[in-house]
Amino acid sequence: MRIDVLTLFPEMFTGVFGSSILKHAQESGIVQYRAVDFRAYADNKHRKVDDYPYGGGAGMVLRAQPLFDAVDDLIKDEQKRPRVVLLCPQGERYSQKKAEQFSKEDHLILLCGHYEGYDERVREYLVTDEVSIGDYVLTGGELGAMVIADSVTRLLPGVLGNAESAITDSFSTGLLEHPHYTRPADFRGMKVPEILLSGHHKNIENWRSRESLKRTWERRPDLLEGKALSEKEQKWLDEFTRKE
Amino acid sequence: MRIDVLTLFPEMFTGVFGSSILKHAQESGIVQYRAVDFRAYADNKHRKVDDYPYGGGAGMVLRAQPLFDAVDDLIKDEQKRPRVVLLCPQGERYSQKKAEQFSKEDHLILLCGHYEGYDERVREYLVTDEVSIGDYVLTGGELGAMVIADSVTRLLPGVLGNAESAITDSFSTGLLEHPHYTRPADFRGMKVPEILLSGHHKNIENWRSRESLKRTWERRPDLLEGKALSEKEQKWLDEFTRKE
Repeated sequence: MRIDVLTLFPEMFTGVFGSSILKHAQESGIVQYRAVDFRAYADNKHRKVDDYPYGGGAGMVLRAQPLFDAVDDLIKDEQKRPRVVLLCPQGERYSQKKAEQFSKEDHLILLCGHYEGYDERVREYLVTDEVSIGDYVLTGGELGAMVIADSVTRLLPGVLGNAESAITDSFSTGLLEHPHYTRPADFRGMKVPEILLSGHHKNIENWRSRESLKRTWERRPDLLEGKALSEKEQKWLDEFTRKE
Repeated sequence: MRIDVLTLFPEMFTGVFGSSILKHAQESGIVQYRAVDFRAYADNKHRKVDDYPYGGGAGMVLRAQPLFDAVDDLIKDEQKRPRVVLLCPQGERYSQKKAEQFSKEDHLILLCGHYEGYDERVREYLVTDEVSIGDYVLTGGELGAMVIADSVTRLLPGVLGNAESAITDSFSTGLLEHPHYTRPADFRGMKVPEILLSGHHKNIENWRSRESLKRTWERRPDLLEGKALSEKEQKWLDEFTRKE
């Protein structure tokens, strides 16, 4: 897979693309990242990428030309038009489902603006997806592009080892994870629950299921809506509710 | 303000802390970022930061000791205990409101795990806030820490120039932004709406308000719920609905 980012700040990506799982995925040849400065495509003497808005108003607007020409260049050897994803506050909320869709592609191009508007023609004619990673204001699309690159890369076959896969899979129960503890059993007077030291596997399994349900009930009750619960789980849920 | 990040991958932050608005904020002395490798605080020979979970199971668990000792060290000269924010999928959803709260603090410590669980005592006794930046699976908390650092820094007095502030303020109308266009008026046959070239300010203002409302209605109808609309806005809304 190829993941290209069009940005005015390519140096922001060096650390993220060069560390941990993304680094290994690239070294294994599973994915190829590029952060491309689209200023290099500007067709004017001063490499200006923005200009004043038609109709007046505050703020500058990113010009269409550098982005169109940069995408043309990135796809010049490709038959199929790849997905071109615009990071912007007005976009569809990014989710794990979207990450799964993106991970099926051969090539993703991610467009990052920087606190300015985009010329609307970019949205209308160049972009296939508009995405926002959350309801908060960021300086640019770069952090969103990193979120997409990371979440998509993790889903590519061969990227995750077994240990990491197991952790990821724990999301698929639809409940939040139970608490974890490791040594020492007593750290500065803070103790590990007795049951985890008991060696009684069935009781531990039971405790974990109950804690997982409890945490979900406390923090993300929306995940329990419409979920089929076992008789035991229903009984626990009644206990939590009574105690409240 | 001080923003410290505890991470096993401090090199991931160099590009983000060293670019654009975050770079300028740091150079102006408004904020000081540090990415600290908490492995340096591990009290064993091999600087091991994780260990097997009590009670068995797949995956490793981050030990409490290196994180507690790192935080102790970071706050050794402070009177007040700062907010310690854990980035994790089970946390409260991060939002602009949370960014505003965080921006009032003198010191934030952000804890980033990496695809492993945390010893629960970190959650119970060290951490003041648990935060998730969205419903997608990431390799670690690092991207979340960058999102917090960026969104909080933007809110600190003196960080944003007027142009950027104006853009940010446009969120405060509670509607999505209207489309922007800049030169040329015809790019590869794609044209700018005539009205924006008309020079008629009142009509332009009107067009922008209508487009802003239309985009919100199409993409984020939730933002319109309970919103007080002018007579004109209500009329537009009726038009959109009829056309559908």
